[in-house]
Amino acid sequence: MLEKLKQQVLEANLALPKHGLVVFTWGNVSAVDRDSGLMVIKPSGVGYEVMKAEDMVVVDLDSGRVIEGEMRPSSDTETHRALYLAWPDVGSIVHTHSRHATIWAQAGRDIPAWGTTHADDFYGAIPCSRQMTAEEIGSAYEWQTGQVIIETFRDRDLDPGVIPAILVNSHGPFCWGKTPQSAVHAAVVLEEVAYMGIFSRQLTPDLPAIAQPLLDCHYLRKHGSNAWYGQKK
Amino acid sequence: MLEKLKQQVLEANLALPKHGLVVFTWGNVSAVDRDSGLMVIKPSGVGYEVMKAEDMVVVDLDSGRVIEGEMRPSSDTETHRALYLAWPDVGSIVHTHSRHATIWAQAGRDIPAWGTTHADDFYGAIPCSRQMTAEEIGSAYEWQTGQVIIETFRDRDLDPGVIPAILVNSHGPFCWGKTPQSAVHAAVVLEEVAYMGIFSRQLTPDLPAIAQPLLDCHYLRKHGSNAWYGQKK
Amino acid sequence: MLEKLKQQVLEANLALPKHGLVVFTWGNVSAVDRDSGLMVIKPSGVGYEVMKAEDMVVVDLDSGRVIEGEMRPSSDTETHRALYLAWPDVGSIVHTHSRHATIWAQAGRDIPAWGTTHADDFYGAIPCSRQMTAEEIGSAYEWQTGQVIIETFRDRDLDPGVIPAILVNSHGPFCWGKTPQSAVHAAVVLEEVAYMGIFSRQLTPDLPAIAQPLLDCHYLRKHGSNAWYGQKK
Amino acid sequence: MLEKLKQQVLEANLALPKHGLVVFTWGNVSAVDRDSGLMVIKPSGVGYEVMKAEDMVVVDLDSGRVIEGEMRPSSDTETHRALYLAWPDVGSIVHTHSRHATIWAQAGRDIPAWGTTHADDFYGAIPCSRQMTAEEIGSAYEWQTGQVIIETFRDRDLDPGVIPAILVNSHGPFCWGKTPQSAVHAAVVLEEVAYMGIFSRQLTPDLPAIAQPLLDCHYLRKHGSNAWYGQKK
Repeated sequence: MLEKLKQQVLEANLALPKHGLVVFTWGNVSAVDRDSGLMVIKPSGVGYEVMKAEDMVVVDLDSGRVIEGEMRPSSDTETHRALYLAWPDVGSIVHTHSRHATIWAQAGRDIPAWGTTHADDFYGAIPCSRQMTAEEIGSAYEWQTGQVIIETFRDRDLDPGVIPAILVNSHGPFCWGKTPQSAVHAAVVLEEVAYMGIFSRQLTPDLPAIAQPLLDCHYLRKHGSNAWYGQKK
Repeated sequence: MLEKLKQQVLEANLALPKHGLVVFTWGNVSAVDRDSGLMVIKPSGVGYEVMKAEDMVVVDLDSGRVIEGEMRPSSDTETHRALYLAWPDVGSIVHTHSRHATIWAQAGRDIPAWGTTHADDFYGAIPCSRQMTAEEIGSAYEWQTGQVIIETFRDRDLDPGVIPAILVNSHGPFCWGKTPQSAVHAAVVLEEVAYMGIFSRQLTPDLPAIAQPLLDCHYLRKHGSNAWYGQKK
Repeated sequence: MLEKLKQQVLEANLALPKHGLVVFTWGNVSAVDRDSGLMVIKPSGVGYEVMKAEDMVVVDLDSGRVIEGEMRPSSDTETHRALYLAWPDVGSIVHTHSRHATIWAQAGRDIPAWGTTHADDFYGAIPCSRQMTAEEIGSAYEWQTGQVIIETFRDRDLDPGVIPAILVNSHGPFCWGKTPQSAVHAAVVLEEVAYMGIFSRQLTPDLPAIAQPLLDCHYLRKHGSNAWYGQKK
Repeated sequence: MLEKLKQQVLEANLALPKHGLVVFTWGNVSAVDRDSGLMVIKPSGVGYEVMKAEDMVVVDLDSGRVIEGEMRPSSDTETHRALYLAWPDVGSIVHTHSRHATIWAQAGRDIPAWGTTHADDFYGAIPCSRQMTAEEIGSAYEWQTGQVIIETFRDRDLDPGVIPAILVNSHGPFCWGKTPQSAVHAAVVLEEVAYMGIFSRQLTPDLPAIAQPLLDCHYLRKHGSNAWYGQKK
C-alpha cells in the first residue's frame, strides 16, 4: 500500500540527519495521498539508521486511525493530520527540533525576512505561534498544536502556500511543501535563515525587513506561475 | 567480572566523541552493579581510539578501592562513587566538558527549561551548583564535588530521578540515568538545550520558563508510569 | 570549446561545498577567457554531486548570449558578466550565501579589517553595497546587481584588485580573483573573517581597524610585485 | 638529519587540520633539537595533504640560516626562533589562526581562566600582547613578533612553562610545549577555552576568574612534580 510514497517518506526522513537537522529520533516527515485520503508517517521513536520503508505507518486522514503498519505512528501524527485537513494543497510535512529554528521558537519570535536567502523560499516573515493554553495542552495536545498553527496563519492572514513553515512557540518548527523533498528543502532553508538571523540581528539590532521589491523579485523568480529559475520551464 | 557491564560502559564512553561531546580524553562514563556493590569506570587519561572493554576499571562502591583492572580509574571516580552512594536509583553517570553545558557551568547559571526539547528529558531547570570552598577543594576534592552535587539537589528540593544532570560551577556537567545509554542520552540532550538556551536568551533577554502545563505534558509523555511515547508500552 | 577552463570552473564549483560555503545549489563560479571574449559558468540549479565539466555553459561576454551548453546558465550570470566587463583584471568570480558573510550582508555592514587573517588577503574593509532601488530590482535585476557592485568600488575609491570581495546588501557575497582557485580562496577567507568579526566585535564593541602598518605588512608580503610569501618567487 | 624530529613535526602539522584549527596552510609547527642547536619547521605555504617529513626545513637556531631543505621555511620561522632562544625549556611551537583564539587576539583581550577546562592546562589567564609599533612591524617583523611575546611574559611576570600560549594582538595564537604533541595539545585546549569564554562572558558579563584554589587544584594535578593524573607516575 502506497509503496512509492512510503519510500519517499523514508528518504525524506533520512535526509534530516544528513542535513544536520535532527539528533536521535527528533524529527519526522509525513506525506499524504489525497486520492485515498491516507497519510504515511514515520514510526515513533525509531532510529534513522534502522528505519525501512515498510516501517512507515499508514494513517487514515479523516479518523486518525492506523490503517497499516506494525508500529505506532510518530507522536506528532495528530499535528500533521490537522494540517493536511485544513490545507488541501500541502502534500508533505516535516517537524524537527533543528537548533536555530528552535531557538527562535523558544524565544517566541517570528524570523523576519532579512535577506534573499529567506526571500528565495519564504514570502515574508516566518511566524511564531502564540503559546498554547493549559486547556489545549491538557486535551488532544498534538491535535491542538495543529489548530494553533492553522489559527496563526488564518488570524495573521498568511498563506501557507508561500510561507511553508511555522515556529510553534516554546517547541520548534513545522515545515511543509507539495512533496517530501520540498518540505525537507523548506526545513533546511529555515535552519539557514534562523542561524543567519540571530547574528544579523546582533550586528544591527533594529534591522528592518528586506525591501518589498527585493522580496518579490527573489520569491517570484523561483515560485508561482511566472517562476523561471533552474532548468525546468 | 562484570563483562557485560564493562562492554556497556565502553560503548557509552565511545558514544561521547561520536556525539561531539569530548575532546581528547575529557569525559568518562561509569555504571554500577547494585547487587555486587561494584562500579565500572573508564581508566584515566586513555584515548578513546585504543580503549577496550577489559581496560574498564572495577571499583568497590563502599571503599573506593580498585577491585580489578591494571590501570588507574578516571580521576573523577570519587565523584561518581559519591553519587551512587547517595542516589540508589542511579545506574550510570557521565561526565563531559561539552562546550555549551560547560559555558553555563563556567557562567555559574542554571539552564532554564525554555522549550519542549528540554521538557522531553528534564523536568525543570538544570541546576548549577554553588562554588566549592577552599576546604572542599583542598581535601578529597573529587569526593567533595559529589557532595556539592548532592547538596544542590537536597537544598533546592530537586529530584535527580527527573532532572538527570547538574552543572558543577566553574567546571562542567555531570549527567546520569538508569543505564549507560540513558546517561549518555541525557548528556546529549543537555548539550542541545545548553546551546539553544544561549541564543534563545540572546533573542529574548528576560525569557520566562516554559509554561508548567507544557513542561508536564512533554516530560510525562516520555517518563514515569504514564509514559506512552515510542514503541514500547 | 574552452575545455580546460570548464574543468577549472567545475573544480572551483565543487570546492564550494567542500569548504562548507554552500547549501544545495546556492553558489556559482565562473571564469573568463579574455582572448575569445567568452565566459564559462555553472548551470542554474544543478546539484554539485551530478555536475560535469561539459555542463558548464559558455556565454558571450559582450552580448550575454549562450554560445555553448544545453542548460541555462546560473541565474546570476548577468552579475558576473557586468563585473568582467567593468574590471579587465578579474579572471574568475564566485558567488555564495556562505553563512557569516551573508550575515554581514543582511546586516548591511562592511567587515572591518580586524586582524592579519583579513590583511593577508584583503587590503582594507570588505565593503557592503547600498540597497538597490525598486527600479534596479524591477528591470534587469542581476545586471543591476553588478552595476551596484561596480558603483560601490568606484564611489568609495576602492580597488577590486586588492579587495577581492563585496557584500551585496540584503543578499550575500561576491568574490573574485585572477583564477577560479584564487576566487574560491577569497570566498573561504571572507567566510573566516566574517565569522571572526562577529565575535571580535562582541568582545570589544568599538574595536578599531587593524593598524595601517600591520595591514600593509601582511597584505604586501603576499600580494603585489614585492610579495615574498610561499615557495614561488 | 633529525629524521625522527622531522617526522614528529610533520605529524604535529597534520594534527592541526585534523583538530579543525587551520584553513588552507594557515598554521605551522616547529620543534627544536637543543643538542645540535637546530630547529625543524614546516615549509612555507605548502598544502597539508601533500606535505612529507623530508619537506621539513632545518634552520640554525643561532643564525636563522637554512641548514637543510629545498623549500623556504614557514614565514613565521623568525618568531619561533626568537622564542626558542629566549625560553630554553620550550621544545616545540605551534602557530594557528584557529577561529576563537584569533577572535580574542583581534579583540585585544586576555582569555581569563574561567573554568577547570582552562585550569587543567593553563595556570592563569592567557595573555594578549600589546599592539606592535610601526617600527617593529617595519623591520624584522616576524622576529619582533617573537620579542613582543617575550616582553609580554617578562613584563607581566608570567611563566611560559605554566601558561603555554599567547595571543598576538590583531593576529592570533602561538602555543608551545616540551614536545610537538604537547604544543598541539595546548593549541587545541586554547581553542576550546576561547570558544567557551566568548559565551560564558555573554551569559555573565562581569564573570570573575576561577577561584584560586580550584585553579591550583586542577593545574597541579596534571602538571609539575606532584602531578598524579593519568596512567604514568
